[in-house]
Amino acid sequence: MSQELIQRLTAELETIPLIDPHSHINPHSAASTTLADIMGYHYYTELAHSAGLPKAHIEEPNLDPKEKVARLVPKLAELDNTAQYSWLVEMCQSFFDFQDENVTVDNWESLYDTAAAKMAEPDWEDQVLKKSGLEQVFLTNDFDDPLEGFDTHRYVPCLRTDDLVFHLTKPQTRERFQKATGVEISDAASVVDGIGKLFEHFTKNGARACAISLPPDFSPRQVSDTDANGAIAALVSGDELPADQSESLSCFVFWTLAEKCAEFKLPFDLMIGVNRGVYADGVFQGQDLYDKRTSLINYRALFNAFPQVTFPVSVLAHTSNQELVSYSWIFPNVVTNGHWWYSNIPVYIEHDCRSRLQAVPKTKQIGYYSDMYKLEFGLPKFAMYRRILASALAGDFVIGRGWSESRAAELGQLVLRGNVESIFNVG
Amino acid sequence: MSQELIQRLTAELETIPLIDPHSHINPHSAASTTLADIMGYHYYTELAHSAGLPKAHIEEPNLDPKEKVARLVPKLAELDNTAQYSWLVEMCQSFFDFQDENVTVDNWESLYDTAAAKMAEPDWEDQVLKKSGLEQVFLTNDFDDPLEGFDTHRYVPCLRTDDLVFHLTKPQTRERFQKATGVEISDAASVVDGIGKLFEHFTKNGARACAISLPPDFSPRQVSDTDANGAIAALVSGDELPADQSESLSCFVFWTLAEKCAEFKLPFDLMIGVNRGVYADGVFQGQDLYDKRTSLINYRALFNAFPQVTFPVSVLAHTSNQELVSYSWIFPNVVTNGHWWYSNIPVYIEHDCRSRLQAVPKTKQIGYYSDMYKLEFGLPKFAMYRRILASALAGDFVIGRGWSESRAAELGQLVLRGNVESIFNVG
Amino acid sequence: MSQELIQRLTAELETIPLIDPHSHINPHSAASTTLADIMGYHYYTELAHSAGLPKAHIEEPNLDPKEKVARLVPKLAELDNTAQYSWLVEMCQSFFDFQDENVTVDNWESLYDTAAAKMAEPDWEDQVLKKSGLEQVFLTNDFDDPLEGFDTHRYVPCLRTDDLVFHLTKPQTRERFQKATGVEISDAASVVDGIGKLFEHFTKNGARACAISLPPDFSPRQVSDTDANGAIAALVSGDELPADQSESLSCFVFWTLAEKCAEFKLPFDLMIGVNRGVYADGVFQGQDLYDKRTSLINYRALFNAFPQVTFPVSVLAHTSNQELVSYSWIFPNVVTNGHWWYSNIPVYIEHDCRSRLQAVPKTKQIGYYSDMYKLEFGLPKFAMYRRILASALAGDFVIGRGWSESRAAELGQLVLRGNVESIFNVG
Repeated sequence: MSQELIQRLTAELETIPLIDPHSHINPHSAASTTLADIMGYHYYTELAHSAGLPKAHIEEPNLDPKEKVARLVPKLAELDNTAQYSWLVEMCQSFFDFQDENVTVDNWESLYDTAAAKMAEPDWEDQVLKKSGLEQVFLTNDFDDPLEGFDTHRYVPCLRTDDLVFHLTKPQTRERFQKATGVEISDAASVVDGIGKLFEHFTKNGARACAISLPPDFSPRQVSDTDANGAIAALVSGDELPADQSESLSCFVFWTLAEKCAEFKLPFDLMIGVNRGVYADGVFQGQDLYDKRTSLINYRALFNAFPQVTFPVSVLAHTSNQELVSYSWIFPNVVTNGHWWYSNIPVYIEHDCRSRLQAVPKTKQIGYYSDMYKLEFGLPKFAMYRRILASALAGDFVIGRGWSESRAAELGQLVLRGNVESIFNVG
Repeated sequence: MSQELIQRLTAELETIPLIDPHSHINPHSAASTTLADIMGYHYYTELAHSAGLPKAHIEEPNLDPKEKVARLVPKLAELDNTAQYSWLVEMCQSFFDFQDENVTVDNWESLYDTAAAKMAEPDWEDQVLKKSGLEQVFLTNDFDDPLEGFDTHRYVPCLRTDDLVFHLTKPQTRERFQKATGVEISDAASVVDGIGKLFEHFTKNGARACAISLPPDFSPRQVSDTDANGAIAALVSGDELPADQSESLSCFVFWTLAEKCAEFKLPFDLMIGVNRGVYADGVFQGQDLYDKRTSLINYRALFNAFPQVTFPVSVLAHTSNQELVSYSWIFPNVVTNGHWWYSNIPVYIEHDCRSRLQAVPKTKQIGYYSDMYKLEFGLPKFAMYRRILASALAGDFVIGRGWSESRAAELGQLVLRGNVESIFNVG
Repeated sequence: MSQELIQRLTAELETIPLIDPHSHINPHSAASTTLADIMGYHYYTELAHSAGLPKAHIEEPNLDPKEKVARLVPKLAELDNTAQYSWLVEMCQSFFDFQDENVTVDNWESLYDTAAAKMAEPDWEDQVLKKSGLEQVFLTNDFDDPLEGFDTHRYVPCLRTDDLVFHLTKPQTRERFQKATGVEISDAASVVDGIGKLFEHFTKNGARACAISLPPDFSPRQVSDTDANGAIAALVSGDELPADQSESLSCFVFWTLAEKCAEFKLPFDLMIGVNRGVYADGVFQGQDLYDKRTSLINYRALFNAFPQVTFPVSVLAHTSNQELVSYSWIFPNVVTNGHWWYSNIPVYIEHDCRSRLQAVPKTKQIGYYSDMYKLEFGLPKFAMYRRILASALAGDFVIGRGWSESRAAELGQLVLRGNVESIFNVG
């Protein structure tokens, strides 16, 4: 299909200012200060480690940032084929006047220095946002985050709840919970009460979503107060919970979160399918994988019980995408959300994007989020998605269905931006 | 690849008169009488509901057809991206002289009136068949359908058996069975006897297939008469069957159907993978979804036990397609059948169609069926498939393997029409 | 995308001499002697059988080769659409001066005779290797293969271990084990000892890999000597092992193989996902299928326990490919290996190849192996892969990322050849 058409549509999409509906940005340190912040992203460390760089070389305590980059650079040649590497080069070219095709042992040091100088400019963060076309960026805040000291319009708080659902069995989590809420966990009611206080705190500070990542075998269900009380009593008495009580507690907390999402009118982002710590000796954030044998049928009870809650759903495995399409096509409260992690490479995005555009109401699709830890990644990640989106619009709509380019671009606008506004009530 | 080549192949395929090997047409009322018959198709009601239209607005008792359409039309803008919507526009343009690009609040009423006028023409049904190139259409008949009052050459009966396999536990089903067969269910032999009578009735009236839809976890197996008798005895004594006996009964009936298919030389259409009623508050026919964790390995015993029965298999999940390809490539009695429901959108058809053309003997592929409830849908659905088939023929055969266009078109003919004739013994 | 570009890249890839890292070649009879050796390949017999040719016609005892071909040829017209058939035509055209487009009842006999004459030439084997650009071919040797009487540089031994892991329960296997190793199996230590002797024998004779095919539900784990001793004691006392002891024994042997791979520095090829004998009445080698419900999470313990062993992994189901990509991206010791069996058709290779190139370090990808039983198949199989690889390089790298053609061709070289050398220590 016509490359020119795709380029025109891409250019059209590039004019749309973005709201990034999911990131791991630290709002107190949003942009990078050295290239090590960029190359320390787990995509590079884990790929370099996978290609043979020992973990100890990457994670040596008190490692100087420049030395860290010096150690990573020689491995880049072995992963220069990856999409992730292409982001690196695009960032360097866009932000740091980098003229070369590759980051090599010969050119990295001057690149490092140029980057450091740019990043030291007082308005670097603003420069990055502007160049990236980013207006707002959603965060991933711990439940006990004070949400202070940053602009919550620019950096939109989002209540991340993995710790509550899966780690309330740990004393430290319960201590953090008590500190954050003033509530000591003693029974089911106290958990509900404390979670209510978290929602108050978060929504008062502009939170626009509750979010969680979930393992492949998780299947939410309503748990009776009696069962929840039993599990919590055992827990606070210091017992190690048996697997069934631990599962009950997780489900109880999860269900309570859904109830609070209903009460506080927050969408509940579900990121489905990750097994944590599969590769025990992997680098930081490079240990998680998955079991593709999961199904959205696990969420049947949830989707039925909470028609008033919107669930933006991300799936880790490409093989789960059709279920996501089908469930979003049928359930009013299920919407498709981005292209997550192991599915965030062009070949999978292409198919997943096309299937959603072909079968899910257009108002129920959140096209993309960056998932980034540092602001500079927004630019190449959204650029990758825009090119793919433009190609899908060109092939399936302009050529395939005879749409005008402007109509196709409007569909792109909705998916890229408009739906983020309407679904999360921002913008 | 050359758009002109694809268009030439599409045009070639358009000359082939069709036999539609699976539909839900009511032969006593095959064509639509108003646009509400078309827009009341579950694809539109469920997508509109998914996009926010309350179920009560769609399913209000005694709702006037025109009012129903008036309520649905404003929601169409939110689903104009979908393949299903493109069928609607194509139908309106092909059948009702519709000149616009979209059905909107501004133009729907005159469209409605034009359609009503056309549909009121005495030969409307014939017009639709002719314009659609449809010669014969397979039905989906309840087991107790008298099969009277319609032309069974044009509308080919097909024995649908979901009720027998999965709902014989209901007294009403057994009553219907007794009425239809004259046999009161009292033991295994009576079930076999009655089912034999159904097959006699159906084949005498020109039936060309037995068919059933199956949940993802169904795994057919032979059940001993002793076990079947036990389950049936419990059933007729009024007991609620425990899960294992209920499963035994389902398997017994299913296996008996396969035996009768062998005896009466009927293909047994298996439509594998649907979970019924997942979204309990969904609109009519918009409640079913699936669990992609199913495998054709569940049918191992069946495929081995009945080499003399042809099993045209449809799978609900795109992720099941490769298994279907592989099982059809190995088992002489397994053939690929169409692109079903949630897999009936272009991106999935493209891949599934290509994989079948690349790896299954060409005589063992039933390209497409409409699954339609109203005749008008045959035109846009087959048109969608033909375009995709033409594209696969162009890319993989004419360009990829140097075939002549006429040879590629012959392959298309076989898949679209020839195999339907040979596999179902029609035409 | 430009067909010329793809052709230029294909031509570039064709200049690379190949090492085929997995085949079933018999080094004492590597090339074919008649067309029956080629058309007797299970791809043709099983497809012809699937299309209706009775097994008895194919597998009649003492069937004359020419008669066998005569019986298969008439069925070819029903499978001339398949990729497998296209290999046949390409072989005939490349090796036997065949000028026609198809092998038919009219032209097969002269083709048969021409082929027989060519194959009778004393240097036929060399001719085939030369024309195919094949320098070395890996074998699949039974554990008790003497590895004598052939050039182990040209035909690289590889220790196949299915029998040891899954059939040690059979007395014949234990007898073969004793004969090959001099060790009588009496306890866990004797198994370890004997396996050590096999590794010595194989590595002394130039073996470059240990390999095994595994069923979908296999999940390797370390088994204690106590449990292994218990199972082996029961076994040698003549008991039929219960399922759990049989599984323990398989895991014990498998784990021992991994330990020996570490000790002897051999990569351990894992071919994951095949169910043997699913179609009991299928033709020879045409009985195996699969259950797509498998996951690499089953190999979590193994991949963690043996960081020093390289595991080239093949998956049978296309739906497992993304897991393979993700696990190879994270685990340093997991590498992607070829396109196996039911996934070895263009539509699946295209996607699997692209995803690997986009997300796995380029040094960790073994592009392709032939899996062939007769030498002549290397040519069309590698040719198919090269065309697809060239297309992926053209689309995703030259056009998509602006790479020069020479840089793209270098990536192709690595995947096609370079990585085989480095991962298996050959070339």
